[in-house]
Amino acid sequence: MQRYSKLFGKTNKEAKEFDSINATLLQKSGFINQEMAGVYTYLPLGLKVISKIENIIREEMDKISNEILMPSISPTNIWEITGRLDSFDVILKASGGNKLSKEGSEGEYILNPSHEEIVTPLAKEYNSSYKDLPFAIYQIQTKFRNEKRPKSGLLRGREFIMKDLYSFHKSKKDLEEYFDNVKEYYWNIFKKLELENDTVEVLASGGDFTKNYSTEFQVRCNTGEDSIYYDSKNNIYYNEEIVPKDLRESTKPVKASEAANIFQIDTKYSKPFNYLFKDENNKNKEVYMGCYGIGISRLMGIIVEKFNDKNGIVWPKSIAPYDIHIINVGNENLDIVTKIAEKLEKEGKSILFDDRENISIGEKLQDADLIGIPLRILVTKRSLESGGVEIKKRNEEEFNIFPIDKIKY
Amino acid sequence: MQRYSKLFGKTNKEAKEFDSINATLLQKSGFINQEMAGVYTYLPLGLKVISKIENIIREEMDKISNEILMPSISPTNIWEITGRLDSFDVILKASGGNKLSKEGSEGEYILNPSHEEIVTPLAKEYNSSYKDLPFAIYQIQTKFRNEKRPKSGLLRGREFIMKDLYSFHKSKKDLEEYFDNVKEYYWNIFKKLELENDTVEVLASGGDFTKNYSTEFQVRCNTGEDSIYYDSKNNIYYNEEIVPKDLRESTKPVKASEAANIFQIDTKYSKPFNYLFKDENNKNKEVYMGCYGIGISRLMGIIVEKFNDKNGIVWPKSIAPYDIHIINVGNENLDIVTKIAEKLEKEGKSILFDDRENISIGEKLQDADLIGIPLRILVTKRSLESGGVEIKKRNEEEFNIFPIDKIKY
Repeated sequence: MQRYSKLFGKTNKEAKEFDSINATLLQKSGFINQEMAGVYTYLPLGLKVISKIENIIREEMDKISNEILMPSISPTNIWEITGRLDSFDVILKASGGNKLSKEGSEGEYILNPSHEEIVTPLAKEYNSSYKDLPFAIYQIQTKFRNEKRPKSGLLRGREFIMKDLYSFHKSKKDLEEYFDNVKEYYWNIFKKLELENDTVEVLASGGDFTKNYSTEFQVRCNTGEDSIYYDSKNNIYYNEEIVPKDLRESTKPVKASEAANIFQIDTKYSKPFNYLFKDENNKNKEVYMGCYGIGISRLMGIIVEKFNDKNGIVWPKSIAPYDIHIINVGNENLDIVTKIAEKLEKEGKSILFDDRENISIGEKLQDADLIGIPLRILVTKRSLESGGVEIKKRNEEEFNIFPIDKIKY
Repeated sequence: MQRYSKLFGKTNKEAKEFDSINATLLQKSGFINQEMAGVYTYLPLGLKVISKIENIIREEMDKISNEILMPSISPTNIWEITGRLDSFDVILKASGGNKLSKEGSEGEYILNPSHEEIVTPLAKEYNSSYKDLPFAIYQIQTKFRNEKRPKSGLLRGREFIMKDLYSFHKSKKDLEEYFDNVKEYYWNIFKKLELENDTVEVLASGGDFTKNYSTEFQVRCNTGEDSIYYDSKNNIYYNEEIVPKDLRESTKPVKASEAANIFQIDTKYSKPFNYLFKDENNKNKEVYMGCYGIGISRLMGIIVEKFNDKNGIVWPKSIAPYDIHIINVGNENLDIVTKIAEKLEKEGKSILFDDRENISIGEKLQDADLIGIPLRILVTKRSLESGGVEIKKRNEEEFNIFPIDKIKY
């Protein structure tokens, strides 16, 4: 059980207003702290949400691949091989510290904005027989992109957390089948995050990654940074950047925010690294690749944009920092409240316990609204006289008296 | 259960020899892959070990502090405030990508080699009343240091994983008491890693962090990079860099490897950031700080240096990538073996199952030795005829027949 009095990063209702709902609410409620434009610290509550999103994603990805962890820095030469050293416009270069700065390239690295240049030679090193293919590996790792104008809180950062999966195939056909299969696991993730009804697959440009179209998972959201167009005849959503002219003129765009993006990158990276596999006849053949991203910190931002009301955040149950927010009114019942909290913990629930003295019940309830834990238990003199506690869901108005011995989540 | 046939990153007995046992064994057994000097990818087996070490550390740190996650990049100006922009000789600077490189400081960051410059203003922002103190926060985060000659595998990397805890106090006395208290939790960690008998507290220089002495946790290790001297009269170990002259001449040094380092940094960082707290009388007073590191990837390297034999790694049970390595001999018993593996999984054990076809039992046993999982189960025709399986510990010679229905870990 986490006592709120001992939690680092309490609510700060006077915190400044940002240009986005997610940054403003997350900063006021003590989930994140902005360090500079597009760069944030995750405070204890925020880190718990990030970990829960990561574990939901991990659970699905582990069904189809192995988790690895590639480094954040890489040598510049592998980015020359693919030509992205010059073409990736937000790439950051790190150079060599005080003593090394005059020594040239030995001290020059890339702060990886993506990992195709690292994963392709790695896969080649270990798996180059037809017996090894197809296979997939993924990681959860920090990415760096020097966005000119980072904005919208966690939606566009210079440093952000991503899951990236890479798949490797004997043929374009096998890649296409796998690509469709991955979508199923992505939908499982969006279901667990309670986003499935507002998410759509959208055809988009391949950006810095491929000349093929990519498939984005866009979450409909009034404050989203993207505009998508629905072609009802063919049941296809298009991103604004590639929408056909006639459709743009005939249909109203919908605002949405990109949560994930998956690409068939074919042989774009295997070719320059000369990644071939030996087939059954010991002949060298081209390896086809797919890559599949999900923005983890970005998802946290999108979820706050979607799930909030005038009083604060309303977390989906699966990623709330704690299951239950217990609030003590007055200090005389501290023993009973502690026992209730311990009972619920034994049943596997995680508890945030607002044990602060000399803070009014009104302020505690305001803080609980801001923090947004889905279930709240209030222990008052009145409720104890009725042999119970008061229970309220975050998105309901009324507290209901509930017998202590029947508390179940 | 992980089928070895589907695991990314198999053993490679032909992999090159590195300058250290840990790099050589970890690369040959498929735990890590070197990307460049001092920079590694953690393959699936290696990442499992890293996660287990992290969770052991987390379990202890959560008892005394809250976990947060600070960013990897920071603005250069905060490093000017403390003077470490010039004095920290392995600091890496990142600059602005292709389009931003000409715009000057807007695109210039530090790749954090440590986090005092980030945590001090953060703590000041949230906790500046006597009621808030003392408190502590920690993170598990990647650090970047541009070592001139990275060496010894995971012992000295350019990119590495660390746990860093920071504590904040009303007085030097309170810091001193807390500092001694943290040592207890560190010892719990070393116990769980089976390193407690070979670890000693060593007085050392404060390096880039403080002019005070620091306390290192050094693991005695023939291949260690440090030399420590024991002063038996006062029962103190000294690091070579600060050992008194008479002691250096009278005592033989012992080789050791630094696993952790803790510092009383007093007001060195709170002063330049003007971090004061208000006491009971509303007067401003100085905040005293401690910082407490443990090298996570480094610990993985040290453990391999300590726990190995001529055939491979011998993991301590608490951090082995899997609890049990099951080996199938021939393919006719695949069903029985799968059932045994499932039974053990239900009992909460994690299983690596070498299900490869057309690989000899000799090669499978060699791979199992290299990988170093503490318990091994071999299912052979002979053992099944006796109604059992063959069980062997990694560090024992003989297999023993064991009844299938009594298998317990």
